[in-house]
Amino acid sequence: MENAVLITIGDEILSGNTVDTNSNFIATELKNIGIKVLQIFTISDEIETIKETLKSAFEIGDLVITTGGLGPTRDDKTKKALAEFFDDEIALDDVTFEHLKSYMEKRGRSEILERNKEQAFVPTKSTVFQNHYGTAPCMMMEQNGQLSFSLPGVPYEVKPLVKDQIIPYLKNKFALHYICTRIVSVVGIPESVLADIIEDWELALPENLALSYLPIGTRVKLRLTASGDDESVLKQQLEEEIQKLFPLVGEHIIATTEDKIEKILGELLTERKLTISTAESCTGGELAKMITSNSGSSKYFLGGIIPYATEKKVEILKVSQKTVDEFTVVSEQVAQEMAKGCQQLFDTRISLSTTGVAGPGKGEDGKEIGTVFYTIRVNDQDKTFKLYMPHLDRHDFMHFVSQKIIQDLVSILVNIQ
Amino acid sequence: MENAVLITIGDEILSGNTVDTNSNFIATELKNIGIKVLQIFTISDEIETIKETLKSAFEIGDLVITTGGLGPTRDDKTKKALAEFFDDEIALDDVTFEHLKSYMEKRGRSEILERNKEQAFVPTKSTVFQNHYGTAPCMMMEQNGQLSFSLPGVPYEVKPLVKDQIIPYLKNKFALHYICTRIVSVVGIPESVLADIIEDWELALPENLALSYLPIGTRVKLRLTASGDDESVLKQQLEEEIQKLFPLVGEHIIATTEDKIEKILGELLTERKLTISTAESCTGGELAKMITSNSGSSKYFLGGIIPYATEKKVEILKVSQKTVDEFTVVSEQVAQEMAKGCQQLFDTRISLSTTGVAGPGKGEDGKEIGTVFYTIRVNDQDKTFKLYMPHLDRHDFMHFVSQKIIQDLVSILVNIQ
Repeated sequence: MENAVLITIGDEILSGNTVDTNSNFIATELKNIGIKVLQIFTISDEIETIKETLKSAFEIGDLVITTGGLGPTRDDKTKKALAEFFDDEIALDDVTFEHLKSYMEKRGRSEILERNKEQAFVPTKSTVFQNHYGTAPCMMMEQNGQLSFSLPGVPYEVKPLVKDQIIPYLKNKFALHYICTRIVSVVGIPESVLADIIEDWELALPENLALSYLPIGTRVKLRLTASGDDESVLKQQLEEEIQKLFPLVGEHIIATTEDKIEKILGELLTERKLTISTAESCTGGELAKMITSNSGSSKYFLGGIIPYATEKKVEILKVSQKTVDEFTVVSEQVAQEMAKGCQQLFDTRISLSTTGVAGPGKGEDGKEIGTVFYTIRVNDQDKTFKLYMPHLDRHDFMHFVSQKIIQDLVSILVNIQ
Repeated sequence: MENAVLITIGDEILSGNTVDTNSNFIATELKNIGIKVLQIFTISDEIETIKETLKSAFEIGDLVITTGGLGPTRDDKTKKALAEFFDDEIALDDVTFEHLKSYMEKRGRSEILERNKEQAFVPTKSTVFQNHYGTAPCMMMEQNGQLSFSLPGVPYEVKPLVKDQIIPYLKNKFALHYICTRIVSVVGIPESVLADIIEDWELALPENLALSYLPIGTRVKLRLTASGDDESVLKQQLEEEIQKLFPLVGEHIIATTEDKIEKILGELLTERKLTISTAESCTGGELAKMITSNSGSSKYFLGGIIPYATEKKVEILKVSQKTVDEFTVVSEQVAQEMAKGCQQLFDTRISLSTTGVAGPGKGEDGKEIGTVFYTIRVNDQDKTFKLYMPHLDRHDFMHFVSQKIIQDLVSILVNIQ
């Protein structure tokens, strides 16, 4: 049981209506127990397509996990396809029905509708994993040493099913070998230049280590994956290879353990007992959200403000009206004053501010769409940056800018060690 | 040219390291010009796998779009696979090289590295679409009436290539028939109950109309898709069928045109000239970010505050210390006072507040993880709700709660019409 294939079933993914986040979650969880996802099929809700894809999937890997197509409504056909593929029939499962009844009673919907009762019908050969956060159960089928799990499509239901039931089951049933991963974050150097500098190092990597480049914004993440039987040997191998990178590009490395920039920041701030606050205009809360999405952020994030209307920047953050009049609200000067006001309002060592035009509507004062000024203030020092990203849509703009600010702050903090 | 297949190439997707958002974007853009995505393959960066998948893809549809595997680094093999599959060779393309040079000069990297020069090598039979936001060009191959486009994997590069070049090209080259979609948002009614109520309506839908259920949080989105030759006929058909839903479930329908809840809110607020502000604790900026991610939100969103530390709730929002001491900071009473303080701070008609424990760390005052109180204040009326979502991880919790609040506000506004 080393290789898995995922099948995402649902027209809502193919039509672009929904982003498939389940595959990402499942792939990560499987990787942690040494199972590699070799391929993902995203297909429509049709019995023949589902059956054909199950066939293709089992030719690639011995473990197949499907998500989607198990709801109580008319467009869900996975269960039928599953029974036909495994030459089985669907019948009412008493345990599942009891679970469903008690699930619905707890939610004050004790009249079990016929349509919901259908959800307790499963292939007779299946092993059922009960769903504690929804009405569609997870069904496992086993045949000739191959395994399939069929899950509903709702991420809130998929996550606990995978984490609490499927992963422990697989871990327990198979003796799995280990995969260890480390990610090195490199900033301030283009991917191609980096690749040139570390080429010899890459070519000399041990055979059981693999390297990938993952550019994200202006950061390049180097992912090193090691596989083998002894976890502690793998960890040591990774550490040794990463140490060899420092003489080559050490000054550009901002992290070697954590992957997410908000976690990297969180570790730095916690370690150095620093506090932070944010004053956002064009990022609209995204920056604060990124910082607070790290668990434990209440230790260092004291607060944020989004003074969207210009007069709120003046009233709450004490930005001077004169500065606004003279330089416009999207300016280096306003960003600076916002950061200063923010630092005072929340009484923090560090403060971050943004002012810009996310678009697509025209900005005030004729500033071009995609322009943003941001200030990073640490103690009584500040530094203001300008970005111009006209090709990004509103959502990506807010996200890119927030990520860049956190990344720049991390670079600054790392260098004033 | 009615059907397309997408191929996402890259180990970073299969390993769970990156969420594939390109497929979603491309599928949406294709849908708008009447091209349906039939399947998405997500595969690893290996020449044989890429070639086999191109074969499978062209058996399903006449248009294949690949993303990923075109970077300047060692793990990118798409170009080779492409040339081999189309029985072609790779050679330096002068126009592409000139474009690359000027692209790099503009960014102050005029020494063209050998590795970057490689990016100007393309299959000789390909038509190149230049990339204005990165170094890897998009290559189109044409054979026996079938088309493939190969794009880089970075979303910031994919979006403009698709939107500004590929879509106009396809639109121009083929006489495409139309697909129209409308989404009806239904709240306050479980999916299975809804399905029962509208069953007869669904069965009576014209043959060229298809219905899908998309549950999202506590909302069910009904997606109606119509296909045919005359756009105005399709639009009328959709409108007629949607009108028939009102006698059945009218009081649960919150929108019939917009899809995203923040857009639905934006339209309501703009139409009624209402203003809004937010005071967030456990949602950490996500609520403000959702509201401001709607273009034009500066018309109604005046500002938000994230008083993360308890003393900031007291200082800035004038929550009484007595209330905090008596009921703890995660309480109905504090949520109410936060909303009131927020309304005053930003001088808005509507204010929203959240206080809760996102986890996974233990909450202050022993409140259980996953508990949140939120207040919706409209003029001098307020309503406070409690949610308990212990099974959600931190990120999903912040998102789910924010979405639910906006949804509840929309329901309230719709009903006080």
